[in-house]
Amino acid sequence: MDMQLRRIGTVRSVLDDKATAPKQGTEDAPDAVVEVDPAYCDALQGLEAGARIVLVTWLDRADRSYLKVHPRGDASRPKRGVFTTRSPDRPNPVGLHEVTIKAMDGLTLTVGPLEALDRTPVIDIKPSLKP
Amino acid sequence: MDMQLRRIGTVRSVLDDKATAPKQGTEDAPDAVVEVDPAYCDALQGLEAGARIVLVTWLDRADRSYLKVHPRGDASRPKRGVFTTRSPDRPNPVGLHEVTIKAMDGLTLTVGPLEALDRTPVIDIKPSLKP
Repeated sequence: MDMQLRRIGTVRSVLDDKATAPKQGTEDAPDAVVEVDPAYCDALQGLEAGARIVLVTWLDRADRSYLKVHPRGDASRPKRGVFTTRSPDRPNPVGLHEVTIKAMDGLTLTVGPLEALDRTPVIDIKPSLKP
Repeated sequence: MDMQLRRIGTVRSVLDDKATAPKQGTEDAPDAVVEVDPAYCDALQGLEAGARIVLVTWLDRADRSYLKVHPRGDASRPKRGVFTTRSPDRPNPVGLHEVTIKAMDGLTLTVGPLEALDRTPVIDIKPSLKP
């Protein structure tokens, strides 16, 4: 079965270090920019500043071999299955980020708060189902 | 870049018809079963019945060529960019399903409500960040 993801855009962020970046957008994460690939321009039609969206990313600096991790990387806490955590280190490092579109200019979306690192591939944008 | 997803489990559901299935879990969707692949047993450690999770699926019967769609498949409504909709027809048909674990027995999770079709590949399980 073809389960090969396509990059539809790229994150541009001041964050570039997995070790020190916030774990969640709610933890003082900065705004960031999503540059959408021109091939997907039509898929943006109707998207507007102010919208709440779920940005779906591919956490490309994750380690896909992990099945258990120390919660929040804290070695003093016992390891747990990765499916009980939001650790990026997991078999399919798909990142879900609920953010607000702060501004939109053509293929360039300013969104935040976003904990994803600079150059992270974006694979989908969905409207949030929650207020 | 390797962006090939791995199947970590499979949905077993009474739903098997894309045309008539509910569009969202909140629309009278049934409970369903997720059979996790034995290779990912350790990743489940700590997961329990009662937990709210985000089930991440690969909507394998989607059409990846669509960039615009009629909202909810209603041809009387003007087409919109797929990134403003939850249509499964999109460049990367990743499905997000917020469900409750109703029961858990080894590698078998009963979850619901779930609108995903029978045999849909499961690619991730994450704890919900919202109550």
